[in-house]
Amino acid sequence: MNKIEHLGIAVKDLEASSTLFEKLLGVAPYKTEEVEAEGVNTSFFNTGNSKIELLEATKADSAIAKFIEKRGEGIHHVAFDVSDIHSEVKRLKSEGFTILNETPRKGADNKWVVFLHPKSTNGVLIELCQEMEKEKH
Amino acid sequence: MNKIEHLGIAVKDLEASSTLFEKLLGVAPYKTEEVEAEGVNTSFFNTGNSKIELLEATKADSAIAKFIEKRGEGIHHVAFDVSDIHSEVKRLKSEGFTILNETPRKGADNKWVVFLHPKSTNGVLIELCQEMEKEKH
Repeated sequence: MNKIEHLGIAVKDLEASSTLFEKLLGVAPYKTEEVEAEGVNTSFFNTGNSKIELLEATKADSAIAKFIEKRGEGIHHVAFDVSDIHSEVKRLKSEGFTILNETPRKGADNKWVVFLHPKSTNGVLIELCQEMEKEKH
Repeated sequence: MNKIEHLGIAVKDLEASSTLFEKLLGVAPYKTEEVEAEGVNTSFFNTGNSKIELLEATKADSAIAKFIEKRGEGIHHVAFDVSDIHSEVKRLKSEGFTILNETPRKGADNKWVVFLHPKSTNGVLIELCQEMEKEKH
């Protein structure tokens, strides 16, 4: 675990919340991106060498929609940057953590991502993420 | 807002959770500290240039005890490092954010802290913190 890569915050209205977090953090979002497979629209802010990711559901059955329905808006997950996602998954599994997807998925912001089950981590949804290598041509 | 200073996680059993997060993060906590005024025991882990703070209630009426009773264990707050806490409070107030304590309180880990009301920040409890100057003798 190299650092907190980002903190994911579930919001109902991405545009309104982006304006709010721009005021809060004093910087504009550096990108917005739809991740269709996850059913979310996202926007990203830099703060120090970590990021804040706002997530808005685009489908009623997306994880973010369900989270908001159950708990309201708020912090959804914390993502840690790792250098080798496969070896971290192996290490954490051997330590007894429950891995939600052992095969890394394509996440937002050019990352391979794996999630740990919050039941094995004191109620915290933890994402591991590793920057994708640029494709060779 | 300079960076994410730390992420605060509410836990029921500090000792068990410290062992768990040591396995997760691959580092031991660098300190444990009781903050009597807040009714909490804490332990701190370094990750990159941010920290993870675990918080266990020491009193039934502490904010952490109430949080766990209502929502279970999990991420409780995110703290941002600021250079001048008084001017940040003034700026955020003028932007329409609700400040919970305008006069900074002494927090854990040698910091002055101010909290923003989650109702004004999409359900996220936000702490501003500024390192205390060393006392002059």
